[in-house]
Amino acid sequence: MPASPSGPVTSRTRSWWGWGYTDAHPDDAECVALGALLPGTPGRPLPVPRVADLSIGRPGVTPPTALAHLVTTDPGVRAAHAMGKAYRDVIRALRGRPGRIPDLVARPTDDREVADLLDWAGGRGVAVIPFGGGSSVVGGVEYRGDAHRAVLSLDLTSMDRVLEVDTVSRSARIQSGALGPVLEAQLRPHGLTLRHFPQSFEFSTLGGWLATRAGGHYATGRTHIDDFVQSLSVVTPAGPGTSWRLPASGAGPSPDRLFLGSEGALGIITEAWMRLQERPHHKASASVAFADFQQALEAVRAIARSDLSPANCRLLDPGEALLSGASHDGSSVLVLGFESATSPVDDRLASALDLALAHGGRGGHSGLGGTPAADGGAPADTAVSAWRSAFLRMPYLRDGLARMGAVVETFETAATWDRVPSLIDAVRTEVSSVASKATGHPATVNCRLTHVYPDGAAPYFTVAVAGRPGDEVRIWDDIKAAASEVLHRYRATITHHHAVGRDHRPGYDLQRPDPFALALRAAKDALDPHRILNPGVLID
Amino acid sequence: MPASPSGPVTSRTRSWWGWGYTDAHPDDAECVALGALLPGTPGRPLPVPRVADLSIGRPGVTPPTALAHLVTTDPGVRAAHAMGKAYRDVIRALRGRPGRIPDLVARPTDDREVADLLDWAGGRGVAVIPFGGGSSVVGGVEYRGDAHRAVLSLDLTSMDRVLEVDTVSRSARIQSGALGPVLEAQLRPHGLTLRHFPQSFEFSTLGGWLATRAGGHYATGRTHIDDFVQSLSVVTPAGPGTSWRLPASGAGPSPDRLFLGSEGALGIITEAWMRLQERPHHKASASVAFADFQQALEAVRAIARSDLSPANCRLLDPGEALLSGASHDGSSVLVLGFESATSPVDDRLASALDLALAHGGRGGHSGLGGTPAADGGAPADTAVSAWRSAFLRMPYLRDGLARMGAVVETFETAATWDRVPSLIDAVRTEVSSVASKATGHPATVNCRLTHVYPDGAAPYFTVAVAGRPGDEVRIWDDIKAAASEVLHRYRATITHHHAVGRDHRPGYDLQRPDPFALALRAAKDALDPHRILNPGVLID
Repeated sequence: MPASPSGPVTSRTRSWWGWGYTDAHPDDAECVALGALLPGTPGRPLPVPRVADLSIGRPGVTPPTALAHLVTTDPGVRAAHAMGKAYRDVIRALRGRPGRIPDLVARPTDDREVADLLDWAGGRGVAVIPFGGGSSVVGGVEYRGDAHRAVLSLDLTSMDRVLEVDTVSRSARIQSGALGPVLEAQLRPHGLTLRHFPQSFEFSTLGGWLATRAGGHYATGRTHIDDFVQSLSVVTPAGPGTSWRLPASGAGPSPDRLFLGSEGALGIITEAWMRLQERPHHKASASVAFADFQQALEAVRAIARSDLSPANCRLLDPGEALLSGASHDGSSVLVLGFESATSPVDDRLASALDLALAHGGRGGHSGLGGTPAADGGAPADTAVSAWRSAFLRMPYLRDGLARMGAVVETFETAATWDRVPSLIDAVRTEVSSVASKATGHPATVNCRLTHVYPDGAAPYFTVAVAGRPGDEVRIWDDIKAAASEVLHRYRATITHHHAVGRDHRPGYDLQRPDPFALALRAAKDALDPHRILNPGVLID
Repeated sequence: MPASPSGPVTSRTRSWWGWGYTDAHPDDAECVALGALLPGTPGRPLPVPRVADLSIGRPGVTPPTALAHLVTTDPGVRAAHAMGKAYRDVIRALRGRPGRIPDLVARPTDDREVADLLDWAGGRGVAVIPFGGGSSVVGGVEYRGDAHRAVLSLDLTSMDRVLEVDTVSRSARIQSGALGPVLEAQLRPHGLTLRHFPQSFEFSTLGGWLATRAGGHYATGRTHIDDFVQSLSVVTPAGPGTSWRLPASGAGPSPDRLFLGSEGALGIITEAWMRLQERPHHKASASVAFADFQQALEAVRAIARSDLSPANCRLLDPGEALLSGASHDGSSVLVLGFESATSPVDDRLASALDLALAHGGRGGHSGLGGTPAADGGAPADTAVSAWRSAFLRMPYLRDGLARMGAVVETFETAATWDRVPSLIDAVRTEVSSVASKATGHPATVNCRLTHVYPDGAAPYFTVAVAGRPGDEVRIWDDIKAAASEVLHRYRATITHHHAVGRDHRPGYDLQRPDPFALALRAAKDALDPHRILNPGVLID
């Protein structure tokens, strides 16, 4: 956690090519051990890539003197802004073929500077790629194509302050470039928290969450960042604007909802008034094991339809439960968590456990004050904390496996309950078949539910298979195309909370209703007449 | 409640000029009695207006033979589609000066017919005004101006079926022209309910609720219809489209959110998959009296910030409480209601009452199983049911007062808590001052909170003052302008759930952020190139 509200959060070094901090990366020996879990991986890891080995050309454009102090051409900084942190990005870096390196990286400090940079870029045909924490896993922050004279990565992380806190209305005005820990550190003295804790929390910003409709902490109810937005400030090439701070409104279509999910294609979100929470004083969690995954789905559906509103309600299939250490006997595991600032939650946990046990669950141990287990089984607090640690460590392990030439990535979706069971079956069967055929190695496809609703759920899949040296990107693209085809057949969304970016464009183009496509294209033309904003995401 | 799932809900006669059913209108004697409550009203009511007294011209356009069976030119039907049901509309009808009578009224029965009507109108410069139940109170369903060759009122009420029910995902596909009772009657056999009960429930349609972002049954949490939409089908002049049925998605800006609140200006919403509820088996309600309105506001804020989630949480100021019979001693009254399909709610009611009593509330009687009163006071169940009856009767009484030449209307807003108390004070003071000056009579301005949020609340105001014969529209417009000016000064939304229509355009134009105005205008141009859809609402 940061010592100061602004500036560097930590002295640890961020990786330019892989997830998170370099000191948390698996070393060579750990990579080899990870590789041993996937039959067919070679015995030695790919070397850690070095910026010095990249051929980074001179910038194709020079910023004007008035903006020069905001801009860097440092090769290391430019390389670190070339791509997001998808498997596809990591393996390209490992293979020495990263995406297009931006010509310039700019770090504006206020709305005026953002507007000046957009004006300058618009007049010169320079593409502008907004950049927060750079944790996109869908190709959201790289430039593809050659329609622009140069590429500017617009890094917002110098705009990272909480500018106002309104404790009466429990909300705060926050600059969009604040990373998760940076904004939480500034809210903590007020006893308040945004409680938006995606897996990327340390390495993603408020603006990134808003522009991509990120999924957050809450597994039920207000699952997306969208619901916590009181007001947005955006700077577009056609001018700036700020919506009024309102708890709710019925005045026309929601202006904020057009910019939420706009992925930098319509404007730059520079700050937001966000609805906050008090820090929870009451917490309880437990896990339940299920011998049968279908029964576990029914249990989750029953809990989602109740008014119990668990903050956490993750169902891990046997493969996910094994990988995370939450179970070792082939069980599926449901991790339940409740929290409240104002009242005890043990009764709600007990009611949820009753529902789970009524649907064939076993266990129900609680680590933090719930209902004791109904029968034997592993202590649930172990399962809960095992899962939590694995959750945060997972992207680092993925990169370790990538160094072993493996193909390891996740994708997620959402569908109504009537389709969820058959959708999960179809993805498992078809994606593992394609992955095995493409690589000649046995493939693993695991599934968990990350968010659940009365009317449906959000399944999250992890694919892991040994690769074929040098061919990993093509293999992953084939796997992803097969997965997207299944999602389309089931009319399951191309993304529940990972965004569209460039990688999801084919699926998104099929999913987006035609009238909305017309409206979005018209809005884009009106707000970004020179078509400089994040070209290639969402719409052409 | 209707006997058949489709067709006429009742044999009762709808008023062409006033609220609801003619047999529920106050008679002359009741009008006089109502008038006696407002000093300055004349002794005799205005006569009930008759269609025969209107000068209704021949239609300015003839529909093509292929569509003729969908279209009527009956003067009574045309008159009933000329306006909504605002005070402004009622008094214009009473004074024999209704809005522009549409040339034609069409009642399509499917999407194809809607598209054909739009094609025909687009080619001939005929304005198309979508019409559901016709209960708009903001000038949402009338034509103003003269830029079009003729006006077609597009009445959707022949599309009133529940087409599919998915009990697994607890949702249904419903045609947009279904009135509240019509759709609930079709859901009831499945044990399901939409639970969207605006004051206009009997006289408004699903499509109208969606197009205006109607506020519904729930006072906290999911207050607007928006949150219950799984998928929308729209027919636009540029083509039709249907969004996928999803419990949630992060794929680009929400396509549905652009059409929610679009008030017929971007397309015709023809059907929707809606998220449903099980019928509540557990209910509890109670009321609490407060000697001090400011303390009552603090009590409500505390309840809104808790996780108790009351379904009803209406705070009536002393004037509202007196009018509805909820109190007679100058108290403010908080009406609380809890409901659940799955678990008892008495504990939640008890906790909410604890919070209310801790903030100076008295009473806390419960009609349906809550906590007994802490001290004396009127039995709360009486207050609760008195308020409920008055709520449904109110629009009829307004029309009775209109017949007495009084100026009686409501308006509503929402603001963050830091502004709520001073906003309410300013509206009361300034609006009653303008109303008194404009009429020369003492004016009443009452307030209630209809919906509450952790970060703010939605105050709803009722203005009542004796008018000046023949001058009522101008007087109301002056009062409304003064009210809108106060809302603007406090950055309180021009509407929380009554929509923008034509009456709120000046306030909405000031409130809408510039980038969103550019995007909305561009979307309008793309989807409605001939500018025939509900001209004058939202944007020009």
